[in-house]
Formats: sequence, C-alpha cells, structure tokens
Amino acid sequence: MQLSEVGEFGLIHRLSAIIGGRGGDPSGVFLGLGDDAAGFQPPENRHLVATADMLVEEIHFRRSWLSSRALGWKALAVNLSDVAAMGGEPHFALVCIAVDSPTSVEYVEGIYAGMQSLAERFGVRIAGGDTVRSRAGLTLSITVVGSVEPERLATRAGARPGDLLVVTGTLGDSAAGCMALLAGPRAAEKVPPSVLEAHRLPQPRIAEARAAVATGAVTALMDISDGLAGDLHHICEESGVGAELDAGAIPLSEACRDAAARLRLDPLQLALTGGEDYELLLAVSPERVDEVRAAITEATGTRTSVVGQIQPAGCQLLLPNGTRVPLSGAGYQHFPSE
Amino acid sequence: MQLSEVGEFGLIHRLSAIIGGRGGDPSGVFLGLGDDAAGFQPPENRHLVATADMLVEEIHFRRSWLSSRALGWKALAVNLSDVAAMGGEPHFALVCIAVDSPTSVEYVEGIYAGMQSLAERFGVRIAGGDTVRSRAGLTLSITVVGSVEPERLATRAGARPGDLLVVTGTLGDSAAGCMALLAGPRAAEKVPPSVLEAHRLPQPRIAEARAAVATGAVTALMDISDGLAGDLHHICEESGVGAELDAGAIPLSEACRDAAARLRLDPLQLALTGGEDYELLLAVSPERVDEVRAAITEATGTRTSVVGQIQPAGCQLLLPNGTRVPLSGAGYQHFPSE
Repeated sequence: MQLSEVGEFGLIHRLSAIIGGRGGDPSGVFLGLGDDAAGFQPPENRHLVATADMLVEEIHFRRSWLSSRALGWKALAVNLSDVAAMGGEPHFALVCIAVDSPTSVEYVEGIYAGMQSLAERFGVRIAGGDTVRSRAGLTLSITVVGSVEPERLATRAGARPGDLLVVTGTLGDSAAGCMALLAGPRAAEKVPPSVLEAHRLPQPRIAEARAAVATGAVTALMDISDGLAGDLHHICEESGVGAELDAGAIPLSEACRDAAARLRLDPLQLALTGGEDYELLLAVSPERVDEVRAAITEATGTRTSVVGQIQPAGCQLLLPNGTRVPLSGAGYQHFPSE
Repeated sequence: MQLSEVGEFGLIHRLSAIIGGRGGDPSGVFLGLGDDAAGFQPPENRHLVATADMLVEEIHFRRSWLSSRALGWKALAVNLSDVAAMGGEPHFALVCIAVDSPTSVEYVEGIYAGMQSLAERFGVRIAGGDTVRSRAGLTLSITVVGSVEPERLATRAGARPGDLLVVTGTLGDSAAGCMALLAGPRAAEKVPPSVLEAHRLPQPRIAEARAAVATGAVTALMDISDGLAGDLHHICEESGVGAELDAGAIPLSEACRDAAARLRLDPLQLALTGGEDYELLLAVSPERVDEVRAAITEATGTRTSVVGQIQPAGCQLLLPNGTRVPLSGAGYQHFPSE
C-alpha cells in the first residue's frame, strides 16, 4: 500500500494502533500520541537521562540487509543501550521518521512493530514523534528518556588508575556480520547466522548494567558502539587516565572467529575497531570486581571478562607474545578527518 | 572548511564550544555532551512534557530561503512551541543532524549558533544528540523536554461547548512569506520583510502560554502549525466537540494582507490553511476569557483575538456576509491522501 493512499494522518493512525494511543501505562507516560507533546510523570528521587541517535539509510543500514522489523528493533536498541550505559532504566521513546514515497505503508508498520516488540520487553512506551516525507531514503531519529537513582548514575568520567576493565558478552560479532553483508549475499550465507543476528538485532544490556551499578562499585561505564579501542579512549579521555588492554583476554565467540576466517579478517581487529557490539565496558576497583561480575551473571546469565586495567596515562595493547603496542582509538567516525 | 578536515569528533568539539560542554546550569542539565546520555534533574512536583520534530531539506526548508542561523533557530523554535502548547517550560534539547559532505563546517556551526541564541533566550540547554553523515541533503531532528505543574497541563482534549476560541498574534504571515519565497527572489523582495521573518524566525509563545495556563481557565490549548482550520479540527477531534470560526475576527496583519495582494492570494485562506504560524489557539470558558486575554497581554504585550466558539458538533466558518460554510480541516499534510 502506498503512503499516498492513507495520507499522513492515516499513517499516524495505523502506527498508533501498533504502539498504543492516548492513556496511561506503567512507563509513567500518561499522555501519548494525539497532542503537541507527550506527558510523563518522572519517578521520584531520580535523575533523568536522555539520549538520541539518528540512523540514515545507506550510511547506517541497507534495507536489503535486514527486515523492517529488525530495522525498528535496532534503531530503538542503540538508544536503550545508551540508557543502560548510564546505569538507567528506560521509560519512553520519541520516534521521528522521514520516509520517501516508494516506501510502502507495510514497511513503515514493520519498523514500528519491531520497535514495539523491543519496547514491550523493557517496559518502554513509544510516546510521540514525527512522521515526515523525505526526498530519498529513510532516516530514523529516536530519543529515549530514562531515569537512574543519583547514587547509581554511571558516567565515562570516574575511572581511576588500578581499576579493572570488564566487558559483557563477546565482541566483534556484529562487525563480522556487517563485513559479511558488505561482502555480498553469498558471503553472508556462509558465516554463522549468529553474527548476522548480532548485527541486526543487538541486545541492549539494561539488566546487566542495572545489576552492575546496584553494587555501587562501578567507577565508569559506557556501551561499546564504536569498537572496544575507540570506546576505551572515550573513558580514558573523560576520566583523565590511560589503560592497558590484554589482547588475549578479549572475548571472541567461535562464530566471530569462524566468520573472520571465512572473510580473511582478524577477529581481534573486529573487536577492537568494528563497532556496534552494544556490550558494556565497565571500570571497577580491583577488590570488588568479582562482586560486580557475579552480580551481572546472577541477574542475567551474561558472561563477563576482565580485559585490562586503567593506568595513569597512555593506552596500549598487551599482545599474547608479551609485547606491548600503542593502542589507537580509531573506531568508526562519520566525516573521517584526512 | 570541509567536514572531512575536522572529522566527526572535531566537529562535535567545535559545536560543543558553541552550545557549552559538560557541567551544570540553571536548566537542570548537570551532564551535557561527552557521555552516552545527558543527565537532567527534573523539577519537583511537575509532569514532564517531551516533543520531537524533524526538518528535512527540500521538504521543510530550502537553504536558499534562510541563513544557517535562521534554520537552527526555526528547528528549535517549532519544538519550543510544542512545549508552550502544553503550558510548559522547556528545559533541554537533544539535536540530531545528518549532513552531506558538501556542507561546510561553518554552515553547521551557524545552525548551532542560531539554536543557541534561541535556547539562551528561554533558558534551554542543548544537552546532546547525534551528528551523522547523509548522502544528500540536511536533516535536523530535535527533541525538547520541558515540565509543567500538573494543574496547569494543557492538552487538546478539554474544550467544551460554549468555550470561546482565542488566538495570539496574527495568522497567515508565515504562509505569506513562504508563498513569496516559493514565487522566487523577485517576489520575495516585494513583500513586507516581516512576512519573511515570520517564516524564517518564528517566535515560540512560551511566556504567553505560561500566563494563560496560570489563570487555570484554559480548557484546551495547542499551537497553530498546520493552519487555524486544521489545528482547530485537532482540538475538536480530541475534545469530541465542534466549532464555529468567525472569518471576520481572524487577525490578519497589514503585512500579510499586502503580501497576499501582491501574490494574488486570499489572506484569509493563508491564515486558515497556510501553517507555520506557531501562534497559540486556546479554548476558554466565556466568563473568564477577558481574564485570560488580560493575563497574556499584561505578561507579554502580545495581542489576542476571539475568533470563534466551541459548539457541540460540526465545524463551520461564519463569513462576513452572515452565511455559514462548512470548515474543512485541510491543512498541510505529508503524504496527502488521494
């Protein structure tokens, strides 16, 4: 069905049916679609955290790479991951979407269905936004507002020399999936499906982050979206410290190793610079690291790994042969400088 | 200067210098750029209101029509206007921008300078967002979060039969400016500059709305962004009522009449269906309308006009000759239905 067959307000009506209309729910949103702005009752005694990300067709995704549902899921997931990275709980999302005319109503509905399925899993309400026309391609811009107890708020700025660096899950899977998709459909068929799923349907680590910050022992926290090396540099810069990563300790899945071998890529490089993992990177004082790791695993079953240590200055990578090399922060950049 | 000369993080650094970096200020934002999400301490005993709008080049604006500063101003203003329409005070904004490579760094900086000048006027903090690449054209998506005392929250849903309809300012100026720009540079030179300014630099009516809702007498409120006729239909639909507009009472500026005459357009039609006025439309019980109008004018100097009345059902326009015609809700629609 063409967008012109339903019109803007017809489209909004159809999308409202997917994400729910006016009225209250446990998210705290008491006024959703249908007014100039959404109404939200913030939880008592909490800070709010707010984050926004934009996904542009052919820059961040290709329609041939993922279903409309996966696109909606992923667009929301990257924002939920940013709320997790502050130690927070997400409450509501505002979704802006620019759509070109050849896109079908069903495709747009698929995006919202994918967002809604992830939103329901985390008690998040899609509370508003904007649906507009684009001249070419699809652009999605999502804002998520969440909250966090002030004493649990985690930033990038608190890491101290001696803190151990912990990551959740495995790294590089999403980048391996992305590289397989870039190499074409035949390459994508030959890699383990889990690396494609890691790229298409990232899992925001909200429960993991909540369990970690509840210990009170996390000194810095962020999500790994630009690759471990680049994101570690962000923590170092904001905290005014350096770090050493232990290459042999970086968790790589069998699927990532297998895909990397087929694609003739280095799985460690994928983990360091590939991006889009949406796992957590934590700094924790060494005497409490077991407690934090146990809290994450008991709450969620998610594995954790100690991958390095904060040091006073400088960033380096400890290779398995015992040599140390400087660790560049080069992750993914828009407008890469020359 | 090209975007590639500064890179993504270089651009973010330059923009941070315009909008301010980490650290607290009176807006309640205690953590701005530099982390996964912005941190915000919400005011006590208030509801939050949150709104997002997307502006797409060649759909919502043309670069040749306005300066980069005006573009930034306007993109933020339309969101502040939505916070005003809930009776709220704005606190912070998240700005997502997709930029194509030919755009200069200076142009992007101009957008942020324009946003910042409006933000400062209303005590709003630009607290985060996303800067990404686009393949063609510029897309801006802005979210604003504000707050409102629960008893002052104004929606579209409370209008009752008998309520009088009040608007602020004059209507149609922005549409006249837009039509002049559409007609080309020579036409734009001949219309009064104020209609071009109305289109380029809309003034969000925050102080006007705050004064009005403080009376406790406003039953419904919205901002006029799609034209008076279309927006009145939104109030009628959400409130389950109808309305009669008095064509002779709709406030038209001399500049709008003059521009319309030059463009051979009907100024009343511009006011009814033109859009982008960002004036307020209020429903108020008849016995308190003088009080509400006085409150607005005393607080801000802004004129108000009574333009009609809520009725149980049906929407019509009372013409100066005393006849009544059905009032269509046709304002601007993306994806107009066939």
